[in-house]
Amino acid sequence: MTTEIRNEPSGKLEFASLYAQVEQFYAHQLELFDAHDAESWAGTFTEDAVFEVPPLSEPVRGRAGLAANVRRDQARQQREGACVRRWIGKLDVRPQFDGTLRTRCSALAYATPPGGDSRVLHVCVMEDVLVRSRSTWRTRHRRVTRDDLA
Amino acid sequence: MTTEIRNEPSGKLEFASLYAQVEQFYAHQLELFDAHDAESWAGTFTEDAVFEVPPLSEPVRGRAGLAANVRRDQARQQREGACVRRWIGKLDVRPQFDGTLRTRCSALAYATPPGGDSRVLHVCVMEDVLVRSRSTWRTRHRRVTRDDLA
Amino acid sequence: MTTEIRNEPSGKLEFASLYAQVEQFYAHQLELFDAHDAESWAGTFTEDAVFEVPPLSEPVRGRAGLAANVRRDQARQQREGACVRRWIGKLDVRPQFDGTLRTRCSALAYATPPGGDSRVLHVCVMEDVLVRSRSTWRTRHRRVTRDDLA
Repeated sequence: MTTEIRNEPSGKLEFASLYAQVEQFYAHQLELFDAHDAESWAGTFTEDAVFEVPPLSEPVRGRAGLAANVRRDQARQQREGACVRRWIGKLDVRPQFDGTLRTRCSALAYATPPGGDSRVLHVCVMEDVLVRSRSTWRTRHRRVTRDDLA
Repeated sequence: MTTEIRNEPSGKLEFASLYAQVEQFYAHQLELFDAHDAESWAGTFTEDAVFEVPPLSEPVRGRAGLAANVRRDQARQQREGACVRRWIGKLDVRPQFDGTLRTRCSALAYATPPGGDSRVLHVCVMEDVLVRSRSTWRTRHRRVTRDDLA
Repeated sequence: MTTEIRNEPSGKLEFASLYAQVEQFYAHQLELFDAHDAESWAGTFTEDAVFEVPPLSEPVRGRAGLAANVRRDQARQQREGACVRRWIGKLDVRPQFDGTLRTRCSALAYATPPGGDSRVLHVCVMEDVLVRSRSTWRTRHRRVTRDDLA
């Protein structure tokens, strides 16, 4: 071991490790959503997950409800004839004393019709509680707020 | 310690640690700006920070000036009736021999009026000098250039 | 070494290290493209790299072809009078058993005319095979798909 690692506080390496895991987790989770892979996407949440998202007036609870949400989104995209891609950025990761992570990020959706111009569909803030469950992170609680409905 | 860590050059782990710290730093700093938290945002800069940003013809110097800039931005948003969110991406982090970091990233602002469509407000390049100050990174120098004014 | 590092599986630190390297690699590679630095950009690919990108009907092969592609892009931007910036996000990094990395990300291009409004030009998916070559990562294969042409 060289001096630099010795001098690097272990908390900083652990944070870097968590940060990369969370980025990879969201890349995968968002990819599943964009691909309308309803069951796999729902599996990235805990079984008892709660998802608060506009314009729904009631939170979605549990994986069956989450998967149904993906299928509703897919049906809407097919009606509107546009490919929608989600992005996140400005990811803030806060490890908690109980081993969970609180994350906050901005989320965007871009819609692109075939042969047409892309446009920004929504600008959102997404706040999650992530828990480690069977060796991977899963979302236990998600709250999305949309800038146009704020 | 397993073989993989032994084989991983310490400089690479240190770089990963720095990179995650800088991403987290910007997530937090941009969040404070979006929330118009003028004093907290100014506190993420050094006391003698210099901030060059268009369309201002003179650099902003020091925290009082930085905080005033946030309040000007907040007043403009209230006049124009839109919620503005900043993003960064394409983050390039270059550790310097003196312990400072030079960073370069693209920055975007999205504006969303209540009930209306989001749009891209500005595309910028943001170049910072970050210094470690009382156990955290702070911006000592920032230069923003806007693609529409280039 | 403190307990936390001992407990952190080495694979997780190695992943964090790879993830940061890849983010930095793309920040640099995209910056070279935006700056129309054709030869330096081509140098971030392997000599035998294959680049599949719409609307080209044939893959670009090798560095001379890659550099020519940058110059074509530069000429088009000059004709159209807009500054174009690429972004990536939602970066998924998958280490392979042979030491290569498979990456998948979303890519955006923003166009900004002088004094005008920025707009989203393209929303793409970018899939790379990265190989370590002379102590740095290089792209050996890239496939870009555009949402408007899907």
